[in-house]
Amino acid sequence: MINFRPIARVIAVLLLLIGGLMFTGIPFSLYFDSGDLWALLNSGLICVVVGGALWLVKSPGERNIRKREGYLIVALGWLAMVTFGMLPYLLSGVIPDIVGAIFETVSGMTTTGASVLTDIEAAPEGILYWRSLTQWIGGMGIIVLTVAIFPLLGIGGIELFVAEAPGPTSDKLHPRIRETAKRLWQIYVGLTILLTGALLIAGLSFYEALNHALTTMATGGFSTKNASMAHYDLPAVQYPVIFFMFLAGTNYTVIYYGLKGRLRKVWQSDEFKAYLFLVVALTAIVTLGVRYHTGLGWEKSFRDSLFQIVSIVTTTGFVSADYTAWGNSLMMVFFVLMFLGACAGSTSGGIKLVRHLVFFKNSFLEFKRILHPRAVIPLKLNGQVVTGRILTHIIIFLLLYLFLFVIGSIIVAAMGLDFMTAVGAVATSLGNVGPGIGKVGPVDNFAWLSPGIKLFLSFLMLLGRLELFTILVLFTPYFWKSN
Amino acid sequence: MINFRPIARVIAVLLLLIGGLMFTGIPFSLYFDSGDLWALLNSGLICVVVGGALWLVKSPGERNIRKREGYLIVALGWLAMVTFGMLPYLLSGVIPDIVGAIFETVSGMTTTGASVLTDIEAAPEGILYWRSLTQWIGGMGIIVLTVAIFPLLGIGGIELFVAEAPGPTSDKLHPRIRETAKRLWQIYVGLTILLTGALLIAGLSFYEALNHALTTMATGGFSTKNASMAHYDLPAVQYPVIFFMFLAGTNYTVIYYGLKGRLRKVWQSDEFKAYLFLVVALTAIVTLGVRYHTGLGWEKSFRDSLFQIVSIVTTTGFVSADYTAWGNSLMMVFFVLMFLGACAGSTSGGIKLVRHLVFFKNSFLEFKRILHPRAVIPLKLNGQVVTGRILTHIIIFLLLYLFLFVIGSIIVAAMGLDFMTAVGAVATSLGNVGPGIGKVGPVDNFAWLSPGIKLFLSFLMLLGRLELFTILVLFTPYFWKSN
Repeated sequence: MINFRPIARVIAVLLLLIGGLMFTGIPFSLYFDSGDLWALLNSGLICVVVGGALWLVKSPGERNIRKREGYLIVALGWLAMVTFGMLPYLLSGVIPDIVGAIFETVSGMTTTGASVLTDIEAAPEGILYWRSLTQWIGGMGIIVLTVAIFPLLGIGGIELFVAEAPGPTSDKLHPRIRETAKRLWQIYVGLTILLTGALLIAGLSFYEALNHALTTMATGGFSTKNASMAHYDLPAVQYPVIFFMFLAGTNYTVIYYGLKGRLRKVWQSDEFKAYLFLVVALTAIVTLGVRYHTGLGWEKSFRDSLFQIVSIVTTTGFVSADYTAWGNSLMMVFFVLMFLGACAGSTSGGIKLVRHLVFFKNSFLEFKRILHPRAVIPLKLNGQVVTGRILTHIIIFLLLYLFLFVIGSIIVAAMGLDFMTAVGAVATSLGNVGPGIGKVGPVDNFAWLSPGIKLFLSFLMLLGRLELFTILVLFTPYFWKSN
Repeated sequence: MINFRPIARVIAVLLLLIGGLMFTGIPFSLYFDSGDLWALLNSGLICVVVGGALWLVKSPGERNIRKREGYLIVALGWLAMVTFGMLPYLLSGVIPDIVGAIFETVSGMTTTGASVLTDIEAAPEGILYWRSLTQWIGGMGIIVLTVAIFPLLGIGGIELFVAEAPGPTSDKLHPRIRETAKRLWQIYVGLTILLTGALLIAGLSFYEALNHALTTMATGGFSTKNASMAHYDLPAVQYPVIFFMFLAGTNYTVIYYGLKGRLRKVWQSDEFKAYLFLVVALTAIVTLGVRYHTGLGWEKSFRDSLFQIVSIVTTTGFVSADYTAWGNSLMMVFFVLMFLGACAGSTSGGIKLVRHLVFFKNSFLEFKRILHPRAVIPLKLNGQVVTGRILTHIIIFLLLYLFLFVIGSIIVAAMGLDFMTAVGAVATSLGNVGPGIGKVGPVDNFAWLSPGIKLFLSFLMLLGRLELFTILVLFTPYFWKSN
């Protein structure tokens, strides 16, 4: 028997939350006189009324939740946020078709950043603010999930490296989950405010600064400009965005230690070191390629390379330059980057570096094991032994991810996309990146896709965002068998 | 200290073997008066002389071999076969450049079947016979490796499912490896003779029948015709070839049991059942797609579908129809099939179905494990529990394979190939298939590629053929550290 009471409670809170956040768009709507006042107001009211009703209803069942309810809360909670989150698009008529509205909302809530808007700048300011906010809400949601919910559910196998990250047990970031989540939210909100300030100083209006800060910290990538971040081709704008994208892709536990000045702790994180090294090494190589290919100056080549690498690795998806125009091999590099993801315990999507790290270290050790079959050769990360169970789980995650990518590409190709567009669209959806390759590249959008493909890609975004297992487990018989 | 004496011995035997086999082309050379007599004769003599000298030389060291020598024997043995196997191409001038000759020989010895010959029918008969023979030798080599050598070296993690396949220990195919290898060779030779007979009955000349029988049983795919098997668009030719390709992709232990009439044993092999099911299910779907796309009759649609599915799954690579002309989604299906491979313990390349089976079964169980974290839920195959060590090894193999595919694609794209051709060429080389997609599709050839790309693809063929670890382990420090 599934206990629906706690599920209804959580959904009620989520609806009240997003309803309240919709109202925060009203000042922009009034200031710009953008004509979306009623759409925001009505959407917010619907959320608050439905959420309030759900809160007051006395559903049967106990208050306790087990694993099963945990999965359902995550899946149904996300579904509810999408269902009600698309109201502003529909009521304002900015996205009149329901499939498009679903796609845009899922893309927002999963911090993907793929868009069906063909002329973003024509949309009213209040709606665009809500669009940015969906990503910020999604990012906040994912922090709670990775810190508090996934470890309890045993999802992802990265629990060791997230909540309890560096060092032994006594070093836990905070014993109480609620307290931990609060700290991380404070960091999340704090960094968003800081970036808003930095962009204000760089000369953006408050509205533009806030919108880009919201979607940067969520590693989302929605922009209020048609040309994305290429609109602001200024070092003073792009370098701060790069820096905060990088931070947004960092494990929040590591950021916490960094803020506390405990740099030795930061340096103990193998994932963070790999993240830093990857970005530096790739930028060095890609800068040379970009300069060779485009003939641009050193600073511009460097900035474009660094920006796009950080943007794709963190799965933000902001576009400062079109990487598909940098030649076959660099395009291939960026395609592969969509499978990396930044650090676990951040808002970034994709596979996450810690999983790649585990795979690589372990593969290397496997050669040693073949040569010395009787020796016990354990895998260590952050100085700790990784247990066989976690190792298996991480490797299965990796393979499952690639398998879903392959099957997804076949399905989307069968729905009519060419090879390159199909693999690009599926890779970018599953990894919550945003832009792909082929006809869904950095300077294209997703509006032209058929409704079936849009829904399928939305499903993939959700699958990727919730670390595959959370959704897939619902489709197994084990889940529905009582006990 | 590496003990070179046994390595020299094995290479000597290999050279004597391929020298002797080169001489068997002389009758064809004389019969067709094809002008390649001296090339074959001289090549054979060089092999025999060098091999004989190596045999007589008293190299230092003991006779015993350890693991290290095992790896070197496999790698250097294959290298020697390529180095001397390309002599007929060079001496006859059929392939005058050394890189092209290396590519063609590696493609042959690894049973891949990708070719640099632009006009196959213009080449002299004796040389084409040698070309077919390289695949047959490679196929024979791989049977010895999978049955006798790999299990000793602990490569591939499929030892349980190859030599000792179905049932408990007392049921071992043959306790003595030499005896086992002999039986399997008898099956290999016997099937080759049977197919030659079948093709003779279908109306092919002895020369054509023998050549295609040699490359079918090796799952190689070299043809003496420019149009490959599309040249023989006859049910009486193509159905026997399909049947023998399917057999060639079956685990030889299973064939052995089948020939002994022990069908219950055959049916105990989970891999064989998956293989059969896969071919039947895919053919049903693809036939519909082909008929819809081409408007051909049912029999022809069915035959083309079945032929190409079996050809690609078994990594033979014969072409009876151009699957890249069947629309995006079917092309994508065939691209994915390149990653499957047929059964372990056959001559087919690729990942092999048993590994996919292990991955799928285990992934499914992982969901059960997440829901019941305290339960011990073992993975079973053929009714036996798969140990954690073998499981890890198989999964690492899978991931390493995909990783090499990705890195290989990037490298080849960086060398100038477009996206689709790059992934197609790398997938088909690593999987020892033959045709790819893009500009190396079923009706194209590999002659136009740059020398650098040809060498790189040759390396990938060797890597794939020798189950990755055999070659890669040589590049690890563990291998060269004494003990």
